[in-house]
Amino acid sequence: MRVRVTSTGLYLPPKVETAEDLAPRVGRSVEWILERTGVFERRVAEEPVESMAAKAAALAIGDGPPPDLIVNASTTPRQALPDTSVFVQRELGWEGIPCHTVHATCLSFLIALHQVAALLTVGAYQRVLIVSSEIGSIGRNWDEPESAVLLGDGAAAALVERTPDDEGSALLAYKMGCWPSGAGLTEVAGGGVLHHPNDPGTRREHNLFHMDGPGIYRMARRRVAIVLRDVLTRASWTQSDVDLVVPHQASGTAVAAVARYGFPPERIVNVVGRFGNTIGASLPMALAAANAEGRMRRGDQVLLVGTGAGLSVAAAALRW
Amino acid sequence: MRVRVTSTGLYLPPKVETAEDLAPRVGRSVEWILERTGVFERRVAEEPVESMAAKAAALAIGDGPPPDLIVNASTTPRQALPDTSVFVQRELGWEGIPCHTVHATCLSFLIALHQVAALLTVGAYQRVLIVSSEIGSIGRNWDEPESAVLLGDGAAAALVERTPDDEGSALLAYKMGCWPSGAGLTEVAGGGVLHHPNDPGTRREHNLFHMDGPGIYRMARRRVAIVLRDVLTRASWTQSDVDLVVPHQASGTAVAAVARYGFPPERIVNVVGRFGNTIGASLPMALAAANAEGRMRRGDQVLLVGTGAGLSVAAAALRW
Repeated sequence: MRVRVTSTGLYLPPKVETAEDLAPRVGRSVEWILERTGVFERRVAEEPVESMAAKAAALAIGDGPPPDLIVNASTTPRQALPDTSVFVQRELGWEGIPCHTVHATCLSFLIALHQVAALLTVGAYQRVLIVSSEIGSIGRNWDEPESAVLLGDGAAAALVERTPDDEGSALLAYKMGCWPSGAGLTEVAGGGVLHHPNDPGTRREHNLFHMDGPGIYRMARRRVAIVLRDVLTRASWTQSDVDLVVPHQASGTAVAAVARYGFPPERIVNVVGRFGNTIGASLPMALAAANAEGRMRRGDQVLLVGTGAGLSVAAAALRW
Repeated sequence: MRVRVTSTGLYLPPKVETAEDLAPRVGRSVEWILERTGVFERRVAEEPVESMAAKAAALAIGDGPPPDLIVNASTTPRQALPDTSVFVQRELGWEGIPCHTVHATCLSFLIALHQVAALLTVGAYQRVLIVSSEIGSIGRNWDEPESAVLLGDGAAAALVERTPDDEGSALLAYKMGCWPSGAGLTEVAGGGVLHHPNDPGTRREHNLFHMDGPGIYRMARRRVAIVLRDVLTRASWTQSDVDLVVPHQASGTAVAAVARYGFPPERIVNVVGRFGNTIGASLPMALAAANAEGRMRRGDQVLLVGTGAGLSVAAAALRW
């Protein structure tokens, strides 16, 4: 599909929490945190999730006109309803623009990008804003240090449009799969009707994040290989054709493991040490950070890939 | 876009609550309930939200093969993460199928249908299952009788495919708009990061439904007219070309008000009296009920229309 990411925006809330700050809270050493997660600092939001989204969006939009569709591709909502896209639009001072939320946990941005590409291709919209903004820090379970020291907050946005006739940008291939037998590997069991906030049986732990990192790795490894092979084949690429890999920043180990699929480490965007795992915002934050550093030029072959709760795997091949 | 709703499924949980049952709980008479809302009975779920979704989906799928994409178009999730589509897939006994959730409150199904049409048109998928399943009853605020007696539970599903070459089914026109200045008219303020379940400041009321029916009507009336005019114009229809109107079943008053836009009442699907307002499941439940009653034949001109939290308005013109 002939679409392009015209511009991106990255927003980091100012408050920094370092591995040194968290070590006493989880009863582990700084070395343990760095070795297990690779996260030496993360941001923690002290503002609403839609405020972060709007700041990233404003950077992506720049001086341009408002978009004709807003897609919030995030996991942590502001509230149960209306959906968060409404509040992002309100924060940006707009009225009348269609908007909705796409939720596929850590893969929300990738799934949204694919849908938006289809909507642009059929001419339904011309100029679409995708925003991902997450406050995962609120769900940190200090009794589960492995995941608590991973999570961070932040937001990113991307403006997506049809590719002008004289350019070559495209979404060349895309693939997603979900295997519900892995649903328990990454969970926040509360926050819905199963353990409703007003249910007296709902416990504090239900509303906190649980993640079985090694379990995910065991289950995901082969499935990621299959999804990557499929996407590379359909893009007519081999590993060496890929200029830049932008993976979901699940953990230092997870990002490092991407190299095992045949990509040189210097071509893999790695920001997890600075940002932590920001759930649905991780992948677009990595994309926006790489874009801000000038790591992609038009025509570059960019591979997006990630795993998410589900257990889910997705990848997309972009000619930037 | 040349797509068709191949089949639909409707699931009603068995437990019925009548206006007589609810009158004492809200301190109002049966007559008051019927006059204000038109809802004489609604279903109340005693099973998980994904179980209802799977039962509706199984009816839509029938003896056919599994879909190649599952879209959960609903507002009330099972839990915060993974997203509910994962659990719907698990309930159906499938593995590996891509899935995600689209959330746009009461318009979730309409927005999902439009996206799915685009995805089918570009050839990304061949056979897509859209499911909407809601347990809104859990958020009933008995101190706000006007909304408490409206809400009900239920699920519906639709199988959507590309139209075979020798048929004429199509999504002819679609329009959505959202006006965040109306965000406070329909709300569940809890359930997200603003009033997180573990926040000691979160009150019981935050997790309950609030709706300002008259306020919605005042704000929506003109906007619905504009959206309808746009969709009818793009479909090259006038009101009299519409064989069937399937509105979101917000309330008896809201469904009756659809006639004011120039449609004869006998062509407007009205199931709100039996089902209540089932949030995102309302519109597809009305569609599935009408389909089960044989009210649509291939070639019929069907108009879907609704308002939702946001305040949002959407409509779609389908050649069935």
